[in-house]
Amino acid sequence: MIYLDQAATTPVRAEVLEEMKPYFSECFGNPSTIYKVGREAKKAMENARGQVADLIGASPDEIIFTGGGTESDNIAIKGIAFKNKGKHIITSQIEHPAVMETCKYLEKNGFEVTYLPVYKEGIVRVDDLKKAITDDSILISIMHVNNEIGTIQPIEEIAKIAKEKGITFHTDAVQSVGKIPVDVNTLNVDLLSLSSHKIYGPKGIGALYIRKRVKLEPILHGGGQERDLNPGTENVSGMVGLGKASELAKNELEYNMKHLFNLREKLIEGVLTIEESYLNGDINRMIPGLANFNFKGIEGESLLLLLDAGGIAGATGSACSSKKLMASYVLTSIGLAEVDSHGSFRITLGHDNTEEDIKKTVELLKASVEKLRAMSPIWNSKK
Amino acid sequence: MIYLDQAATTPVRAEVLEEMKPYFSECFGNPSTIYKVGREAKKAMENARGQVADLIGASPDEIIFTGGGTESDNIAIKGIAFKNKGKHIITSQIEHPAVMETCKYLEKNGFEVTYLPVYKEGIVRVDDLKKAITDDSILISIMHVNNEIGTIQPIEEIAKIAKEKGITFHTDAVQSVGKIPVDVNTLNVDLLSLSSHKIYGPKGIGALYIRKRVKLEPILHGGGQERDLNPGTENVSGMVGLGKASELAKNELEYNMKHLFNLREKLIEGVLTIEESYLNGDINRMIPGLANFNFKGIEGESLLLLLDAGGIAGATGSACSSKKLMASYVLTSIGLAEVDSHGSFRITLGHDNTEEDIKKTVELLKASVEKLRAMSPIWNSKK
Repeated sequence: MIYLDQAATTPVRAEVLEEMKPYFSECFGNPSTIYKVGREAKKAMENARGQVADLIGASPDEIIFTGGGTESDNIAIKGIAFKNKGKHIITSQIEHPAVMETCKYLEKNGFEVTYLPVYKEGIVRVDDLKKAITDDSILISIMHVNNEIGTIQPIEEIAKIAKEKGITFHTDAVQSVGKIPVDVNTLNVDLLSLSSHKIYGPKGIGALYIRKRVKLEPILHGGGQERDLNPGTENVSGMVGLGKASELAKNELEYNMKHLFNLREKLIEGVLTIEESYLNGDINRMIPGLANFNFKGIEGESLLLLLDAGGIAGATGSACSSKKLMASYVLTSIGLAEVDSHGSFRITLGHDNTEEDIKKTVELLKASVEKLRAMSPIWNSKK
Repeated sequence: MIYLDQAATTPVRAEVLEEMKPYFSECFGNPSTIYKVGREAKKAMENARGQVADLIGASPDEIIFTGGGTESDNIAIKGIAFKNKGKHIITSQIEHPAVMETCKYLEKNGFEVTYLPVYKEGIVRVDDLKKAITDDSILISIMHVNNEIGTIQPIEEIAKIAKEKGITFHTDAVQSVGKIPVDVNTLNVDLLSLSSHKIYGPKGIGALYIRKRVKLEPILHGGGQERDLNPGTENVSGMVGLGKASELAKNELEYNMKHLFNLREKLIEGVLTIEESYLNGDINRMIPGLANFNFKGIEGESLLLLLDAGGIAGATGSACSSKKLMASYVLTSIGLAEVDSHGSFRITLGHDNTEEDIKKTVELLKASVEKLRAMSPIWNSKK
């Protein structure tokens, strides 16, 4: 299989699984206990916390482990909403459902939410943000990198405004961590969500960066673990896995950025030779390994199935919405007509992809698009 | 090491880890995707759901996976509280912090909570429950088995009353599943929480049984996974692990109940030869593998450390509170003086413990209690 849906999830790397193994059946203690296997587990957990902190330039005591990116987003956004008196939140129209649905829930519960537009280029405009701020604004939550079109938001500029106005700033960095440099001090964010399974770590674990002095109201209650914010016996093997994945991501970032950029250049060059094919989003402000194409006159889902039959895995929209028949709200937000959003196809590359993968993919894409168009009433009525 | 803290956590069994392995790096797909590795992951997840359902006599579509027992409790209790109009909840004084702290949180947010007493025997009385019910009662949450003293609550009797009054009934069965028979229809509960790492599955995963037609208000928001109740990319390897652990727990329940009962008989016989040592809770209404002892005149924590130095792991209170210097609220609820609650020590046995383990433990316990009493001002002032 050629796996080109690395924004949906990634395989656990061999080095990561190796590191996790002792924490299933040997150093299996509950980290809240004080005998030997408990202390060993606790030590491994704190070592992992340090590795995650290192990846994003944070202190270990600013990191809590969570059940994943979605849980991090929920803990951060509701944690600020329920802690503060103001009732206004600013976010964007293209956030991941973890942020979007959380904001909609808050809207139903007495909060006011502004969803900033992103225009054709898929980027929030700082002027819009400035205009949206009111005296009642308590939180800005803007994703670092979009999961469907890969555009990078101007986080530093947004943070500058948030700081000036004294508004807490959260960013969902699930799609940027491990793909481009992410440093919480350079970005100047107060809260940052990340996920393990997007960076070759195990599923079911994530982290939330919480800047010192930022206080959150807990949304889960129990035995007090993870500073009262994620109670329950700690997932030690998962933490160790995320820790190791973070270390690898940090060490290999520079190489990967170049590698993925080069592969994508070849991919785009090949794919855009297909008649009436387009690239969604602003190519100059995207992470290196992602390309979201639009092919006129076809259904992305049919394309996905043809590629699957040929041993290639890609995506329509994001995995989180790919089973729903609705148009992607990310694509309609950047101005695509609904019919065109259905004809979009996302390819996300990883460190293990090769030039040979790209060559095969371009060939199969060409053949498949041609095949689908031959059967497409939309395409044929146009001709 | 002789591990006698199996209520705190358990090692992942070799058979369980073996089953999980392919789901880290091979069948690693996101179950929300429709290409091959995604479909394989989805299939494994649904198979695991069936295994969990089988363990407790439920249908697979009544099971959602969660991040663990604490998350299950939060999703269940808040899910009912926020869905219904009434504001009164009934629970017990000896619930796990996951239930206790959730109820305290609800109290601060406009709900009224009745905490039923459990008396010397550590058991809720059905008459107290009847008296506590008001027209405003929406939820009864009583644990199946207590984590510190192992007492089994009269769940069927409670369920009968709950049904008569039309009140939803949740039970935290984290400490009963895999230890005694647990069948959701025999128990007649509406909601039941269970945890993987207490039954030789991995940490970071649990499940919640939700009886058909019981509706919960989600407390986490995102991409809609697990019936909108636990959104985020599914922890497939964790689910597969919990599934396999459930299968083993079901198959081996009968043998384990006898094995643990016999081991505990020998343990109690040996330990109670120690002068002024007592058993907490009602021995006739306890799970087989747990014994909570009280040794006059010593500190449980010092005993724990002496045993640890001798290669034996046991517990004071539960792992969730063993780092806090407060007296166990479970032990004070069954009438122990604070000073005596500090002298308590919990031993929880597992399928891998042997008679030899018990022999060594009794010997070291005797020697350690003697040593500590020799240094104890409380003990010596009494003499």
